[in-house]
Order: sequence, then C-alpha cells, then structure tokens
Amino acid sequence: MANFKRILIGKPLHNEEMIREKLPKWKAMSIFSSDPLSSIGYGPEQIVLILTVPWAITYGFAWYVAVAIVALMGIVTLSYAQVAKVNPGGGGSYSVAKKNFGELAALTAAASLFIDYTLTVAVSISSGTDAIVSAFPTMTDHRMSLNLFVLFGVLMLINLRGVRESSNTFVFPTYAFVFGILALVASGVFHIISGDTLVIPQASLEKQPLNWTVLYLVLRAFASGCSSMTGIEAISNGVPMFKPPEVKNAQLTTYWMSSLLVVMFAGITLLIMHNHLLPVENVTMLSQLAEATFGRSFMYYYIQFATMLVLYLAANTAYNGLPPLLSLLARDKYMPRYLAARGDRLTFNNGIILLSVIAAVFIVLYHGNTEHLISLYALGVFLSFTISQAGMVVHWHREKDSGWVLRAFLNSLGAIVTGIVVLIIMVAKFLYGAWLILIAIPLLIYIFRLINSHYEDMRLQLALPPDDLITPSGGRNIVIVPVAGVTRVVASTLKYAKELSEQIVAVFVATDKETAKKVEEKWKNWNPGVRLIVLYSPHRSILGPLFKFIEKVESKKGPNDYITILVPEFETKKWWHRLLHNQTGLLLRNLLVFRRNIVVTVVPYQLEK
Amino acid sequence: MANFKRILIGKPLHNEEMIREKLPKWKAMSIFSSDPLSSIGYGPEQIVLILTVPWAITYGFAWYVAVAIVALMGIVTLSYAQVAKVNPGGGGSYSVAKKNFGELAALTAAASLFIDYTLTVAVSISSGTDAIVSAFPTMTDHRMSLNLFVLFGVLMLINLRGVRESSNTFVFPTYAFVFGILALVASGVFHIISGDTLVIPQASLEKQPLNWTVLYLVLRAFASGCSSMTGIEAISNGVPMFKPPEVKNAQLTTYWMSSLLVVMFAGITLLIMHNHLLPVENVTMLSQLAEATFGRSFMYYYIQFATMLVLYLAANTAYNGLPPLLSLLARDKYMPRYLAARGDRLTFNNGIILLSVIAAVFIVLYHGNTEHLISLYALGVFLSFTISQAGMVVHWHREKDSGWVLRAFLNSLGAIVTGIVVLIIMVAKFLYGAWLILIAIPLLIYIFRLINSHYEDMRLQLALPPDDLITPSGGRNIVIVPVAGVTRVVASTLKYAKELSEQIVAVFVATDKETAKKVEEKWKNWNPGVRLIVLYSPHRSILGPLFKFIEKVESKKGPNDYITILVPEFETKKWWHRLLHNQTGLLLRNLLVFRRNIVVTVVPYQLEK
Repeated sequence: MANFKRILIGKPLHNEEMIREKLPKWKAMSIFSSDPLSSIGYGPEQIVLILTVPWAITYGFAWYVAVAIVALMGIVTLSYAQVAKVNPGGGGSYSVAKKNFGELAALTAAASLFIDYTLTVAVSISSGTDAIVSAFPTMTDHRMSLNLFVLFGVLMLINLRGVRESSNTFVFPTYAFVFGILALVASGVFHIISGDTLVIPQASLEKQPLNWTVLYLVLRAFASGCSSMTGIEAISNGVPMFKPPEVKNAQLTTYWMSSLLVVMFAGITLLIMHNHLLPVENVTMLSQLAEATFGRSFMYYYIQFATMLVLYLAANTAYNGLPPLLSLLARDKYMPRYLAARGDRLTFNNGIILLSVIAAVFIVLYHGNTEHLISLYALGVFLSFTISQAGMVVHWHREKDSGWVLRAFLNSLGAIVTGIVVLIIMVAKFLYGAWLILIAIPLLIYIFRLINSHYEDMRLQLALPPDDLITPSGGRNIVIVPVAGVTRVVASTLKYAKELSEQIVAVFVATDKETAKKVEEKWKNWNPGVRLIVLYSPHRSILGPLFKFIEKVESKKGPNDYITILVPEFETKKWWHRLLHNQTGLLLRNLLVFRRNIVVTVVPYQLEK
Repeated sequence: MANFKRILIGKPLHNEEMIREKLPKWKAMSIFSSDPLSSIGYGPEQIVLILTVPWAITYGFAWYVAVAIVALMGIVTLSYAQVAKVNPGGGGSYSVAKKNFGELAALTAAASLFIDYTLTVAVSISSGTDAIVSAFPTMTDHRMSLNLFVLFGVLMLINLRGVRESSNTFVFPTYAFVFGILALVASGVFHIISGDTLVIPQASLEKQPLNWTVLYLVLRAFASGCSSMTGIEAISNGVPMFKPPEVKNAQLTTYWMSSLLVVMFAGITLLIMHNHLLPVENVTMLSQLAEATFGRSFMYYYIQFATMLVLYLAANTAYNGLPPLLSLLARDKYMPRYLAARGDRLTFNNGIILLSVIAAVFIVLYHGNTEHLISLYALGVFLSFTISQAGMVVHWHREKDSGWVLRAFLNSLGAIVTGIVVLIIMVAKFLYGAWLILIAIPLLIYIFRLINSHYEDMRLQLALPPDDLITPSGGRNIVIVPVAGVTRVVASTLKYAKELSEQIVAVFVATDKETAKKVEEKWKNWNPGVRLIVLYSPHRSILGPLFKFIEKVESKKGPNDYITILVPEFETKKWWHRLLHNQTGLLLRNLLVFRRNIVVTVVPYQLEK
C-alpha cells in the first residue's frame, strides 16, 4: 500500500524542500493564461450555439454580443491590473473581500470561487475531450472514460506529486495553442481579403426585429459568451510567482494576455460568422473552422491536439487555485482543518482530492456536456469579479494615495459592469442552471459558518483555564475484565490489571447454563485472586448483559472513580485466522469507545502460530 | 438499525423457547419430500433435453434411462430406510462416515453435502422460476430479480425468523403439487387408453445404433436424470422429528415418498415420450405437458403455480439441512466457531446467511440457467450416498446383530450402485461442470483441515498450565501520552495517567518548527508535572515519528515492563463534527492495536456542544 503510494506520488519531501519558484514573464504567461486563452476553445461557439435556435432568426446578433464581450474584456483587464498592484501577496477575491468588507463578502467570494474552480475543471476537461472527439469521431463513446482518466489519472496525480514538475509543462502547449489559433485567424483573414466572397455573408447577418423573446436569447448568448473571460483574474492571484519587479511584470503580462485574448476571440468569432457555421453534434465549431480553413491536413490535427492540451492544462490552473484557497479557509476555520495540512509532497493533497471528486460529480451528472456545464459556469466567476472590484474601490477610498480617484473610478466601472453582467447571467440563465448556483452559494456560506462555529465551540471548550493543575483525583480505578473462558489470554490480561488497580472484577457472559457452571468451576479451581461474575444471557446476546453490568457499576461509582474496561485480545498470526473468531473483542472496544466516561484498554496477546 | 432487524426477524427468543417439534407422518412427509418430489419439475426433462441433440438420433434411449433411474430409486430407498434405523439421532452422511470411517470420509461427505445443499437452493429456485416463466413469458426478463428476491427476501428471511413458522407452510404446496402431477399423469394415461394413438409414437422410439458418442450421450442423460433423486436421503436425516415410534414412522414415510416419486417420475417420462416433446426455450416440458393435456385452463395454471411453490420449498429444505451440518462441523472445529452459535431466533443464522450467499453466487454465475446448474448437481449427492451406504456396511459388520447379513448386502448393493453412478457422472459430466466439483471437494476438505489445525493450535497455546498463578510482574508501567496541543483533553488524559503510573511521558509531533516552539513554551508555562518530548517531523508524518519513538522506548524497557499508550480522544456531539477533525486518534489506536506487547488505552473526553 505504502509502496504503491510511493510509486504514484513520489517520496515524501522535507519541509525545507519547499521552493517558491520565481518565473520570467513568458513562463508566467503560459501558466496563468492557459485558463483564459483556452476558453477560446468553447467561448465563441457558445454565442452562436444559442443564437441558432430553430424558432427564431438571431444569427445576426452574434457580432453585437461579441463586441460587448470584447469591451467587457477591456474593462475587466484594466480593473484586474490594479488588483495586482494592491495585492502583491496574492490571494484573490477572498483576501480582497476579507480585508475590505468583512466576513459575509469574503465568504461569498470564497463560495463563488469554490464553484468557479470546480466548474473550470469540469468544463475544461469535457471541452478538451470535445476537441479530440471532433477529430476522431470513434472516440465519442469513450468520452466519459477519457474525461475521468484525465481528471483522476493525470491531473489529480500530477498535482499530488507537486507543482514542481508542472511549471515547465505549461510552456509548450499554451504557446502551441496560441500559435495555432493565430495561424488559423491569419489564414482565415488572408482568405477573406484575397477572395471575392463577402466578409460576412448575408445569412450570418440575418436577424428578426428585437422582441422580448429575442432579447432573452441575445442576453443568454452574451451570458454564455462571457465564459470566454473566465480565468482572466488568474494573474492578479499569482503576483508572488513573478520575478521582481513583481507587480510591474504581472501587470504587463495581464495586458499581453488580454490583447491575445481579444485578438483570438474576435478573430474566431469573425471567422465563424464568415463561414456561417452551424452547430453539428459532436463536432466543435473550432474543429469545423479548422477543417474549413486547412482541410484534414496536419494543421487541422495540430489545432485539435493543441486545443485539447491547453484545455486540460486550463483545468490544471484550478488545481493551483482552489487548494490554496481551501487552505486559507481552513486556517480561518471555515473548512475542515486538514485541508490546510501539506501532504507528503508539500501540496495541499486533501484539497486536490476534494476538487477532483467534486469536478467528477459535475462531469458525471452532466454527462460531460460542455454546453450544459457552461450554463452553470459564468455566474460564480462574475460574482467574484464584482466583489473583488468593489473591494478595490473601498481600498482606494481608504488609502487615498496619489491618483486614487482615477483608480477608484476604473474599479467602480469594473464593479458596476461586472455587477450588471451578474444580473444578466442570473436572469438569462436562471432556468438553465444558474438557479443551482444561486442555491449553492448561500448553502456553502451556511456550511462555512457552521464549521466555523463548531471550531469556535471546540476552542472554548478545550482551552485550559489558567489555573488548571493536575492533582490526583483521589478516586478508585475500577477495572472490569470481560473474559471468554479460562485461558492464557485471560491470565495475561489479569496480570496487567493487577498493575493498574486493586479493584478488579472479571465478567463472563454465558449463553447457556452448562457453560456457565463449567466456567465458574474452572475459575474456582484456578483461583487467580480476582472475583468472577457470571452473567446468564438466555437470549444469547453477549454485549447486552455486559453493557448492563457496566451501567450498574457506573451508577454505583463515586464521582472521582474511573471505570477501565480491559479487553483481552489475541492477535492471530495470519490474517485469515481472524475470520475464524467472532469479533466480539473488536465490537466491544469500538462500541465502548463511544460511551461516556469509560476508559477502554486493549491488552494484546500474540498467538505464536 | 436494531429496530429494523426486529421488524424483519422478530424479537429475540429465550433459550427455553426452543421446541423440538414432533411431526405426524403426513406432515413429516410434506416437509421432507418437497425436495425429492419437486425434482419431478426438472428431472425427466433433463433426460430428454440431452437426448435431443441435433447431431444424433437418441430420443429412443430415454425410456432405458428412465427404467435405470427407477431401479436406482428402489435400491437407494431400501438402503436409506436402513440408515434411519441406525441413526435415530439424525445427522446423515457426515455422522455415519465419522462414526464408521473416520475423518477423511466424514469430511468428504461434509464437502459433498455442502455443495449439494447450496446447489439444491440454486437449482430449485431457478427451476421454480422456470415454471412461472413458462406460464407467463413476460416474466423472462425478470428471472434473475425473481430468483434473488425469493432467495434473500423470502427464504433467507423466513429461516432467520426460525423454523417454527415454517413447518405448516409445507403441507399445502407439497400435497397440492402431488395432486397436480397425479392428476396430470392420470388424465394423460386415460387419454392414452381411451384414444387410438400409439402409447409411444414411432418418433419417440427412434434411435441410432450405439457407438461411443451415443453411449456418452446416454450416460449424460442418465447422469442428469439422477437429479430426480436428490433429497431422497432427507428423511433419514430427520428421524428425531417424527412422532414415536420414530424409526418405524420414518421408514414408512420413506417408502411412501419413494413410491410417489417412482409413479410421478415414470408417469411424466411416459407422457413426455407419448407427446414426443422437444425442448422449447423458456418453456419447461412439464409446462408443455400440462398445456398439451389441459390446454391453458385452470388446471394448467394450478400445476405451474404448485410446481413453483414446491420447488421454492425444496430450496427451503437445504436451509433445514446445511446450517445444522455447519454447526456440527463448527463444533468439531472444521468450520468457524460462530456457525455453531444460535442467533436471536434460536436459528443458526450465520449458516443461513452463508448458504444464501453461496447459492446466490451460483445463481448469478450461471445466470439462473437450470440445465447448467444441474450439470454440477448430482455428483455431490451421489458421492454422499455412496459414503453413507458404505458406512452402513461397516456398521452392520461391526454390530453383527440378527439379520445383519441381509442388511449389509442391501447397503453394499446401494454403495456399489451409487458408487458406479458417481463414476458415470464424473465421466459423463466432466466437461459440463463436474470438474468444478472435483476441484471443490478436495479444496473444501483442505479448508476444513486448515481451520481445524488453527483451532487446535489455539487450544494448545491458550490452555492454562496447571500451575499458572498470577503474580505481580514487578516491572514498571511506562505510560506514553501522544498529545495534539495543550488542551483540556490532554489535562484529563494526564490525570488518568497519574492513576496508572509514575512513569509518564507526553509526546508531541510538530510538523513545523514554529509550532514545536510554541507548544514547548505553553507546556512549560502550564507545568503539569509530566515531561513533554517534542518530535520534529520535517516530512509532516505524525504517526511515523511517534511509532519510532515507541520503538525506542520498547527497546529500552525491561522484560517485565509494560508500555501503555494513552490515546486522548474527544467525542463530538454531532456525527458530522467528526468529519471536521483529522482522525489521527482513531488511526493511532487501530494501528497500535496490531503491534506486539503494547497496551492501548483510549481515554474519552466528551464535547458538550
């Protein structure tokens, strides 16, 4: 068992082997931007997907939605560049909210992030698998197994081994993906310019007049398209990982990343409209686009593989985000304490496992359907955006350092815009999954508080009063030894009992009268100097009469007396020998442990063969 | 949990509520003969099933096989009537073999019976279900669920409640089945006599000349047909349940039962040949016959239901047979001891559950296919017949009371004939499942012996030497208290520790240096009069350094010293609070219990909220 763990996870690391890597910009970019950039893999598609319902002509609204999202990207980027400046220690929305607003906002941010991170894993993995299924339709039936294998067999394992190995892994796939998408956009645009087709064909511009239903569709498309922005905050949480000057480098990287995101998002959306792509089952629009542009050439497969890789890596960013957040929550006593403990490899392994399990639940419940998962997705992300931006406004207002008005204005704008987006998503996607998130967030907050109040209770109850001296109780220690006959096991147990106390009584429960008599006689002949009480149990229960006897002793004991039950237990030489004995000893000690004020002692006796 | 058990099983019974029912012949007959008579439900069919392969013409051999089986029935009946005389205490082949031959033969008989009884359950249930599926083809898909429901939901439960309720249940279905089959045979025979068709049509008499392949088929048909005789020994095992004069009544009942068996077997086989029935999937031949004779009238459904009931009841006879056999084996230390203990309802409930589970394994492995299960069946039965008859011969030879020569001759005949049948079954069905039994029997014998030798080792090791007096060891009791901080739990544990010994040491395992320092300081300020040892664990394992420390203490202790580990453990008020604490205490005590020579004591501390 332990060996198996060694092979999977690697040998335990010493506390001092913890290294805080410092990354150059180009490396940090690849780590932090795999999440936002990879959303190009599903974001633009989601807009068109919703605008191509059979009962309304709305394809033409797609570019309005795309423009709105690009504008939103700009605002959020500017806002987050400022977060990096204020939080050079990292920590994200939870820390910002805790510092600037207090518990409720902080827990709301924590709950949103919790949901956001688990969904990032679920969405990214299932959409990475979509990329590969698009290229190889024979994989369709193995979608779920592939999802779960990537989740548990790759991501969880790599993260349990520790982050050390993972920083370099990011560089290649992220840039490969960026290159692939830029090549796709470039050759698509070249095709538009050099050809004599319309930039956007008439079919892609058709739309019926706006009415409430159509508006609702457009808002839904916007809400789903917002999933292209998830992960944009990652850099501001990871400032400490940059090479100095950390803040400046982090900000520069944010701008670079956002520029790439805007170019890729706008380019892909344009090409989708140019090719008038329509949803095809089991084929992503990115795959359709790559096929339309390059045919089934090397470049097509290159783009599909790069998309898959970058999406799986994007799932990995949640592993860098949630476990540390959980450990912060655990340290603040909002989550079980063991989520704050570092495992063998200095990773927060309990958090890593928890994240994997919850993501698996989402994937299985939604059958790995990316579109349905995305319906849950954007709400949590934008809620934490809003809280974080609002927290920044409070911060600027409090600090009032030079230029704070402009900064507060930028963050106010961010908070207001993302706040409006939160409202839009709530309304537009309420029926499509947002209701679940609206229940889950308060529920999580409730759980955080419940846990906190238990730990608080514990602390008060367990705290030593300042004058607590340990004085002997002055009471007796009444030792009860349940015996199963007259054997060496009993002899060895009684010998130990005599070390503990003068007050020893042995108890035998007989299920029939002959045995009762026989054991009584044997005991008399042996005469070990300890009184034997034989209880006759006509209903053949062993534990019942024993517990009743213990209760009787309990009711008679003084307030300072202890009752100690000595459970004799022989350890068999081979594991299967255990099956040959009824497990009364085991049962007894496990049941007794749950009774108040009784000390349970297991006295071992080793069988030699 | 306990309440649920009460509803299912009923309230516990007092030892003195055990009643040994005494049955009149007609009632005893219904109990003991449901097993052999019910085999009419599948036995005759098995013969024809094997003789209607597409690649050989062998239908005409059916009546030879039937005659051979009828003759065999006569011989076995006479032999078993004598077993009843010699074993008025019941007990069957195992007892006979143990008394007359010794261990190996007894264990062979026990192994055969073990397999026989579990297969009786599997075969009878699946073929009872066949009867109902024949009448209602829509049930075909629910075959397996019905099998398992009857097994666990009806038979196991009824038997766990106790035999008391079950004796009357037998009377109606057994006689209803006998009446149904006799009516079927009578009206079939009347039809033959009154009509002008041939008694057996030419088609049913056709056969090709005997060659090795055909002989093999005929022998297989015979071997499968022998399944009609299973259970014929039941009466001789149940002699004590008869009203006095027990032996005479048991013998009379044996004769009556066999006569009925012969009439029914011969009649059904005759009618099958008369109607030239051929195998039809999911329809038993008995169903075909009943339909041919009565149409889909009331009588048809009556026969199907009665067949189903009597077959399910036949499965029940194994519940009267195997658990007592297992308890005998357990008392002789060949099976785990708890199989000899009577449960709440005075039944051998562990044996009942074991039987149900093994039968379920057979049913599931063979997909409830009666034909395949029967291939395994007859071998074990006839093996135990042979052993039992041979044992009788030895018995007569030893006793030599008046008329022993004739009796010995009868049993010799029985032993030889059934011995030959064993050989035939082995050869004819080797490839069809008998090989499994030929592996299983020696394996079971090996297991019986292994268990026995363990118990024997135990007995010798645990026996008190005659002069074992309990003298104080004169050694010290070194108490080690692992602590997780400075809390009231620790204070309460140390208080108890001071009751036990002067030699106390507290151990704290620190996963980082700051905590180590902090706890050391706190302890110094508190000053509880007990030395604290702080172990720094840079790899963050708690148990590793603790175990190493305990080993160090162990290596230094004197030969008469005890090491007692006190594990402080707080009990939370609500079950879910447990999830919020790492279970180091639990883990610690469960791992320590498996170490040699260490006494583990759990000192409880109850949280108030």
